[in-house]
Amino acid sequence: MRNICIVFQYDGTRYHGFQRQTDGLLTIQGVLEAKLKLLTGEDLSIIGSGRTDAGVHALNQVANFRTNSRIPADRFAPALNSILPPDILVNFSEEVPMTFHARFDALAKTYRYSVLNRKVHSVFLRNYAYHIPYALNIDEMNRAGQYLIGSYDFSSFASSKGESGNPVRQVMDLNCQRGEDDLVTITIRANGFLYNMVRNIVGTLIEVGKGRLSPEEVQEILQGRDRTLAGPTAPAHGLALVDVEYCNGS
Amino acid sequence: MRNICIVFQYDGTRYHGFQRQTDGLLTIQGVLEAKLKLLTGEDLSIIGSGRTDAGVHALNQVANFRTNSRIPADRFAPALNSILPPDILVNFSEEVPMTFHARFDALAKTYRYSVLNRKVHSVFLRNYAYHIPYALNIDEMNRAGQYLIGSYDFSSFASSKGESGNPVRQVMDLNCQRGEDDLVTITIRANGFLYNMVRNIVGTLIEVGKGRLSPEEVQEILQGRDRTLAGPTAPAHGLALVDVEYCNGS
Repeated sequence: MRNICIVFQYDGTRYHGFQRQTDGLLTIQGVLEAKLKLLTGEDLSIIGSGRTDAGVHALNQVANFRTNSRIPADRFAPALNSILPPDILVNFSEEVPMTFHARFDALAKTYRYSVLNRKVHSVFLRNYAYHIPYALNIDEMNRAGQYLIGSYDFSSFASSKGESGNPVRQVMDLNCQRGEDDLVTITIRANGFLYNMVRNIVGTLIEVGKGRLSPEEVQEILQGRDRTLAGPTAPAHGLALVDVEYCNGS
Repeated sequence: MRNICIVFQYDGTRYHGFQRQTDGLLTIQGVLEAKLKLLTGEDLSIIGSGRTDAGVHALNQVANFRTNSRIPADRFAPALNSILPPDILVNFSEEVPMTFHARFDALAKTYRYSVLNRKVHSVFLRNYAYHIPYALNIDEMNRAGQYLIGSYDFSSFASSKGESGNPVRQVMDLNCQRGEDDLVTITIRANGFLYNMVRNIVGTLIEVGKGRLSPEEVQEILQGRDRTLAGPTAPAHGLALVDVEYCNGS
C-alpha cells in the first residue's frame, strides 16, 4: 500500500464543486476517482486539501489517495491526463509518507480573486473574472484589507451554511493590485478559511472600492462578528485556489 | 440609410470561422446577422475586415453594415450584447461615412499567436494557447523574424487553398516575447495577410525556436517562394486578431 499525492488544476465552470456528491452531479472529485478506478481497478477515495464551490477554479489543488496499484508514482500524472477531460489537468504526482493527509496537513492556502475592472468585459475571461464596469479604488481596498491581516474571529465573513466550530483564522497576506488590461486581483493567504470567507471578504472589499464602505467600516464589520454586516458574496467564477502549503514546502 | 461600424471580440472555439456559411454551420458573421435581424427587422449583411478560421479568436474585429433602423448608433453595442451568446461581445458601435468599408479600408492588421512554453499546459489556456513543452529559443525566433519584416512575396507562407493574386505583403512588425508564466507571444503587424500566413510563419518560427531551422534558413524559405519549404501550420486556437487599423486611427 502506498500513499500518492497529486497536484492538479481545473476549470470549475462545468462542475458542481470539488466534493463528490451522492446525486450523480459532475464534480472534480467524482471525475478523478472514476479515472483512478479505470487506471487501478480500485474503488479509491481521494482526500482533497479542501472543497471548492461550483464554478471555482484551482491552479494547484492537492489531494492524496492510498493504492495497491504498481503504477510508478510519477506516472499517475500522465496516465490520468491521457483520460481526464480537458478542464482537469494533473501537474505532477509523487509518493508521500503513509501519514500524509492533504486536508489535515495543510498549513496555509492562497486564493486569488479576479475582477475585470473596465467598461467592456472580455469574452476570454467570462468564466474567470467578475466584471465590474465602474472604477474601483484599489488603494482604499488595500487599506481596508490591512485590517483583516492577523488572527481574528472571521464570523462576519462566514456564510451561515458554514460549520460550527472555531471561527478564528489567521490571514497572513491580503493584497489587491491592478494588473495588465485592468485586471484587478485580490490575493488572500491564510491558515484556513471559513465557508465562503474569501468571496465574502472580496464582496466587502469591492464595496470599499466603490466608495460605499470606508476601510474603517471594514474593521468594524470584522469586530461585529455578524454576517449581516458584511458586503455581498462575490460570484464564484472569479475565484481560484492558487496554492496549498505543507510542512515540506509542497 | 446609415453605415454603422461595430468593433467586437469573440472566442472562436465554438465557431466554424468568421464567414457566414451556406450549410448552416455556426459562424460569427451568421450569429451577428441573425441578432441584427432581431433588432432591426432587416436582412443585413455585415462586411468584416477579413475572415478568421475556425477556432481563431478576435479582440477587436471590425465590421460595418448599412441599415434603415432608427436605433442610435452607439446603442447597437449594448442592444447586441443583451442578445448575443457569451462568447461574442461588441466593444462599441458608431456611425461612419457611407463610403466606409471594413475590408477595403483596412490599412493594417495585428495578429497575436500565443504559445504556452512550459512542461504542463494550463486548463485556462487550453483553447487560447498552443502548448509546447520543450523550451523555445526566443532570441533565435526574433532573429529569424527580422528577415520577414519588409515588403516581400510571402508565397512560401501561404496555404495552397489561398487566392491567386498578388502575393506581396508588407510586414511592419514581428516580435516574439516570453511573458509571465512562460506564455510566449508572437505578434505580427502587416498591411494584409495571405491565407494562413500568420500560422505558417508561426509554425516556421517554432521550428527555429526548437533549433530545427536556423534564422538564415527562414530567409531562404522566404526567398524560395515555395510553400513546401516552410514549417507546419501552427494550430488555429493559439491565434487571435488583435487590431485592425484604418485611416482615422480606429
